[in-house]
Amino acid sequence: MFTRCVRNILSRSAFTVTLKRHSWRRCSTSQTETVDQVTTLLQLCVDRFFVSPGHANVELFQRGLCCSYGPLGMELRRNLLDQWWHSVTRSGAQVFGINTLSSSSSSSREAPTGGQGQLRIVECEQLKQRLGQKQLSKGRLAEEVHMLLQRSPSMRTNLLQGALEQFVPSLELVNRKLPFGLAETGLCFQPAEGSGCSAEVTQTSLVWFCSPRTSSQWLDHWTRQRLKWWRKFALSPSDFSSNEVQQEELEQAASRGVRIIYNFPWGQEVLETLWSRGDAELLHIHKGDRSKLQHQDGRRSIPHVVSVTANMDRGAMAFLSNSLQQLKREESKKKLHQRKVLKLHPVLVPIKVALNIGRGATVELRQICEGLLQEFLEAKISVWPGYLETLPTSMEQLNAKYDEMGVLFTIIIGENTLESGLLQVRSRDTTIKETMHISEIKNFLFRYISAADNI
Amino acid sequence: MFTRCVRNILSRSAFTVTLKRHSWRRCSTSQTETVDQVTTLLQLCVDRFFVSPGHANVELFQRGLCCSYGPLGMELRRNLLDQWWHSVTRSGAQVFGINTLSSSSSSSREAPTGGQGQLRIVECEQLKQRLGQKQLSKGRLAEEVHMLLQRSPSMRTNLLQGALEQFVPSLELVNRKLPFGLAETGLCFQPAEGSGCSAEVTQTSLVWFCSPRTSSQWLDHWTRQRLKWWRKFALSPSDFSSNEVQQEELEQAASRGVRIIYNFPWGQEVLETLWSRGDAELLHIHKGDRSKLQHQDGRRSIPHVVSVTANMDRGAMAFLSNSLQQLKREESKKKLHQRKVLKLHPVLVPIKVALNIGRGATVELRQICEGLLQEFLEAKISVWPGYLETLPTSMEQLNAKYDEMGVLFTIIIGENTLESGLLQVRSRDTTIKETMHISEIKNFLFRYISAADNI
Repeated sequence: MFTRCVRNILSRSAFTVTLKRHSWRRCSTSQTETVDQVTTLLQLCVDRFFVSPGHANVELFQRGLCCSYGPLGMELRRNLLDQWWHSVTRSGAQVFGINTLSSSSSSSREAPTGGQGQLRIVECEQLKQRLGQKQLSKGRLAEEVHMLLQRSPSMRTNLLQGALEQFVPSLELVNRKLPFGLAETGLCFQPAEGSGCSAEVTQTSLVWFCSPRTSSQWLDHWTRQRLKWWRKFALSPSDFSSNEVQQEELEQAASRGVRIIYNFPWGQEVLETLWSRGDAELLHIHKGDRSKLQHQDGRRSIPHVVSVTANMDRGAMAFLSNSLQQLKREESKKKLHQRKVLKLHPVLVPIKVALNIGRGATVELRQICEGLLQEFLEAKISVWPGYLETLPTSMEQLNAKYDEMGVLFTIIIGENTLESGLLQVRSRDTTIKETMHISEIKNFLFRYISAADNI
Repeated sequence: MFTRCVRNILSRSAFTVTLKRHSWRRCSTSQTETVDQVTTLLQLCVDRFFVSPGHANVELFQRGLCCSYGPLGMELRRNLLDQWWHSVTRSGAQVFGINTLSSSSSSSREAPTGGQGQLRIVECEQLKQRLGQKQLSKGRLAEEVHMLLQRSPSMRTNLLQGALEQFVPSLELVNRKLPFGLAETGLCFQPAEGSGCSAEVTQTSLVWFCSPRTSSQWLDHWTRQRLKWWRKFALSPSDFSSNEVQQEELEQAASRGVRIIYNFPWGQEVLETLWSRGDAELLHIHKGDRSKLQHQDGRRSIPHVVSVTANMDRGAMAFLSNSLQQLKREESKKKLHQRKVLKLHPVLVPIKVALNIGRGATVELRQICEGLLQEFLEAKISVWPGYLETLPTSMEQLNAKYDEMGVLFTIIIGENTLESGLLQVRSRDTTIKETMHISEIKNFLFRYISAADNI
C-alpha cells in the first residue's frame, strides 16, 4: 500500500515541477517527504488548537480514535456531525433520530453484533471488597469476581445494537410501513489490541429497515449518498473512494458490504462501512418473535437491515489531511518561503472570520469590532476575536497563522473604517484583499457560506 | 419537601376553582392527583416518542438520568444542548469549546474532583484469564486482579477534570489573559448506589478561570445568566429557582456554591450547580507547577476556578414537566373532556409543524406536502409528515395527538389549497385556525420561532 501511495506521489510530483517558478506551487513529495507531510499535519493540528498537545493524545488522533480536542478540532467535528445529521434526516427518506445508552446491563447485550460484552464497567470498591475477603477460598473468590463481572454493565462497541432494539417502538411511529431508518451519533468503545487500554470512537450510524427484495438497491443508494457527502467537503475528492467488500471478508450475517476509504499520506483507511445484513440479527435481538417485527406491506416477511456506520474522528482527520496545502515559493536561491493553508470547506471550517484591528484609535476600533462580533454571532457565523490580542504581530505572521487555522476571511478594521465605514477583507483561498463597506460584510459572509453549502 | 409541594398545589387549586365553568381550565391537584400528574407525564412521554418504552428505562428518565430516548426526546435534548452551547459561547465572554475523553488511563486521574477512578473499564477476557490461572495462589491472584484494575482506564464522573487539564494549552490561546472559560458537553458516569450498576448523565460544563478577587462576582454573574436561561424556556418560570449552598454542605475546595433547582410535582431537584472552587484543584492537577499556571495580569497569582455544571437529562424532564398543561372542560355532567398540551418553548419543541391532508385529490395534495416538506427542511424547520399516515383519524384525534407531542402548528392542505393556494394553520397554544397563503407559511413559521428565541 505504501509503495502505491509513493508511486502516486511521485507521478504527481513530476506534474508539479512543470509549474512556473516564482508562483506558489504544491510541494513535490517523495517518500521521506511523506513522513514530513504527516509530521507537518500533526504539528499544525496541535499548534493551531485542533488537537490537545501530548504525544499519546496525538497518537490517538492519528490512529483515527477519539482524542482530546482543542477548540478548533471540537468545532470541526461538531460541524461534521451536524452535516451528517442534516444529510441523513433531510434526505427525503424517513429517518428518525434516537439516543440509546452507551452502557447496558449484560443480559440484554448478548448479541451477535460483534464484541459486545467485552468491555465492562466495574465498580472498583466492590471488586476490591471481594478481593479483601480473607475467609474465601480461591475457587470461591474467582467465582464471586466472575459473578460481579456478569452483573456489571457492558460498554457498546457500536450503535447498531441499540437501533435494532428500538425497531419495535419505531415501527409504531411509521404505522408499520417500510422503509425507514434510525439515526444516532455517539461514543463507542473498542478493546484496544494488546495494550489493555480501551479506545473511544465517535460513530455515526444509520440503520435502515427495508423489504428483503430491495436491500441490495438500498445499499447502493446509501453508498452513492455517502460517497457524495464525503466528496462534497473535499478539496481533492478523488482521495475518497468506495469499494465492495470481497466475499471472503464479509461479516457473518452480511450478504454484501461496501467500504468508503480515504487515501491518507501513509495509506488507505476505512472511514465508513455499509453492510446489507439480512434479518438474522433483528430476529435474534427480538428473540425470534416474528409477529412483532412484521410490517404492513408483507405480513410474513421480516425487514432486512442495511447498516451505515462511520468513524467521525477519522473523518475529521481525513478532512484536515485533505485540506492542507503546502505551497512553496522560491524568491531567491537562499530564501524559500513555505505557505501552509488549511483549505477546509466553508461549512466545516471551525472559524469563518477573524476580526483584527490595524492602525488607528484603538478604543474606537475595538468598539467597532465588538459590534461586528455580536452581529456575526447572532447570524451564527463563528468569529475569532483577533483584536483582543495585544502582542504585536506583523500582518504577514497574522495571515500565516489564520491560514493554518483555516480561517476563511480576515477582516481588518482601521482608520479608514472610522472615516468611511470601509474595511479590508482578505480571502484565505485567493489571498486577495478587497475593500468592503461595514454594512455589507455580514451578508457577504452569510451568502458565501450558504452558497458553498448548496453546491 | 413533599408537604411543602402539596401545600403549594393546594393553594394553587383554591385559585383555579374560581375560574369560569365551560372554559378550559387547569386541573386542580391534590396529593393523589400529584401522583396521577406524574403518571400522566411519564405515560405521555412514552406514548409520544420522547422516551423509549420499558419500566426500567422510564425509571432512569424519572431519576434524571440518561435513558433511551425516542425521536422526540432525542430532538428535545439536542435543542436544549444547542441552546446551552450558544448561550455560553455567544455570551460575549471568552468561552472556548473543548472535547476531552470520557475514559482515561488511571495515572492521570487521581484528582480531588470527586469519585474519579471509581468506575473502570475492564476487558473481560483479560480478567477471566487471570481468574483461570490454576497455578496462582489466592494472594497472588488478588494481587494480579488489583494490578489489572489499576491499569484499566477509569470513566469520568464529571467534565471538570478534563477542563482543568486543558487549562495550560488554553492559556496560550488567550495570550495568558484572564478571564476565560472552557465549555464541554458530554456523558459522565456515576456509580449507582447499591445496585452495582452505573448510571449515565448528559452534563454541560462551563469551567471559568478568573482572578482570585473576582471569583465571587463571577459566581453571581453566571448564576444570574443561568437562571435567566432556564426561565427563558419555561411556561411557569417560578418553578425554577436558585439558592446558596449552606456553609456546612460546601464541597471540600469550594468557598461558595449555588444550586439551581426545579420544583417537580414530587419535590425539588437540582438541575445545575455552580461552585467557586479556588485554585487548589488546578494546582493539584498541574502538580503545583505555579509558573505554568500564571496569567499575564498577576505574575504571582494562580487563577481561581468557577464551575457551572448542569444535568441536561434532568433539564429535559424539567421542561417536559413544566410545559404539560392539563385542561378540563365540563360540557355536561356526564361528559368530561380533558385536553393535554405540551406547551414546550418554540425553540425547544422537537417538531415545529405537522403537515396533513384534508379532503381532495390525494395524489396532488401529497405532492404539495412533499414540496412544503422540502422547503421547511431547507429552512431547518422540523416537520412531521402527517400526510404519510394512511389510517383514518378524525381531526379531533389528530389535534389531540399533536398537542401531546407539542407540535406548534398543524397545517391542513385541502381542496382549497389546490384551487386558491390557501391552507389552514392551527396553533397549539391558541387552538385557533387561520387561513394563510401557501407562499407565506415558511416565513410565518420562521419569524414566529425567531421571535420566540429573541425575547
